[in-house]
Amino acid sequence: MHVHVNAAMSVDGKLSSRRREQIKISGDDDFARVDEIRADADAVLVGVGTVLADDPHLTLDDSALVSARASRGETDHPARVVADSRARTPTDARTLDDEATTYVLVSETAPEARRADLEASGAEVVVAGEERVSFLAALEALEAHGIEQLMVEGGGEVIFSLFSDGLVDELSLYVGSMVIGGRDAPTLADGEGFVADFPRLSLRDVERIDDGVLLTYDC
Amino acid sequence: MHVHVNAAMSVDGKLSSRRREQIKISGDDDFARVDEIRADADAVLVGVGTVLADDPHLTLDDSALVSARASRGETDHPARVVADSRARTPTDARTLDDEATTYVLVSETAPEARRADLEASGAEVVVAGEERVSFLAALEALEAHGIEQLMVEGGGEVIFSLFSDGLVDELSLYVGSMVIGGRDAPTLADGEGFVADFPRLSLRDVERIDDGVLLTYDC
Repeated sequence: MHVHVNAAMSVDGKLSSRRREQIKISGDDDFARVDEIRADADAVLVGVGTVLADDPHLTLDDSALVSARASRGETDHPARVVADSRARTPTDARTLDDEATTYVLVSETAPEARRADLEASGAEVVVAGEERVSFLAALEALEAHGIEQLMVEGGGEVIFSLFSDGLVDELSLYVGSMVIGGRDAPTLADGEGFVADFPRLSLRDVERIDDGVLLTYDC
Repeated sequence: MHVHVNAAMSVDGKLSSRRREQIKISGDDDFARVDEIRADADAVLVGVGTVLADDPHLTLDDSALVSARASRGETDHPARVVADSRARTPTDARTLDDEATTYVLVSETAPEARRADLEASGAEVVVAGEERVSFLAALEALEAHGIEQLMVEGGGEVIFSLFSDGLVDELSLYVGSMVIGGRDAPTLADGEGFVADFPRLSLRDVERIDDGVLLTYDC
């Protein structure tokens, strides 16, 4: 499986403010670019924190991209995947609507009743990991469902876990020309953090987009 | 006064790991560039957190830069400035040695005994602000000492305060091709963080250096 992390952050590495409200960090050209990456993916992954904070739909905005997928014999939209160890995704989350298949990755500690609620709401529940989602196991399960190209849209906890497990192949990072600040604001990679053996990336491309810059790395 | 913030961070906006140990984020070409900015500055500012974590000397490494300053009739090294609200700088800190003038910015709450210790160690103590250092007042005091070009080398608390007070004129940001991660690791701009009216910067230049990229902004 090819795992492509895509994110927009402020110059100080923040995905949002300490209030975790959605902040417009990039512009229209970058939004179009993100939609194209989505259109090329078999599935788009976010963490439950992102679902609870932003309630994203994770479908394609551009109808031309939908048509292009259809003409390739693909579903209108890529599948959606929520990493949700304790099955906290609300049953009325937009990401659970019937526009696309949705997988919810949970751990063995996720309450049975919540798993049943999610399944009744149309989600396919994938159990992987004891206390927290094991991405190694979860991505293997997704691959068995035919998912080869996985796009990851955040947040910082999920992205850190994926780097920690050595699962990231590519990082597209839009650095917006603004400061968010805040020692409690979410960053591109949160979690426990590394203290040694920091993952080293290879900077492939640098491109100005909107009023910021897009950095692309091979991982 | 012209305030130039210079920093090196990981792709996820971290200046260091959660252990706050010094991490080599950039390379030799970037170190040389930083030394040149220092050589052009009248003073170099860091926060006391950086002094306690790294014990930096903040003098020029390159003897050619020292000679060039001397030939311009300047002191060998720029002055050093420590933002230290409660006067916690150790009297044996390298930044207090006699290689250059050192100003310690303290607030009115800094214990008199500690201020006296710092003065006995050769520091010039500048009182600015009640509970915390007021950079507006402190920079005015430094200007009265002839400091026109101020370079700021971190850390994230100082940099956030300066942005918060609208005092930053220029930001040079080296983005190293590595992930540090950690929700408790220091970032380029910590503090309380903004929740609205985020400072917008203007991206002036993008340049590959070592295996990363240098982003230069007008603020």
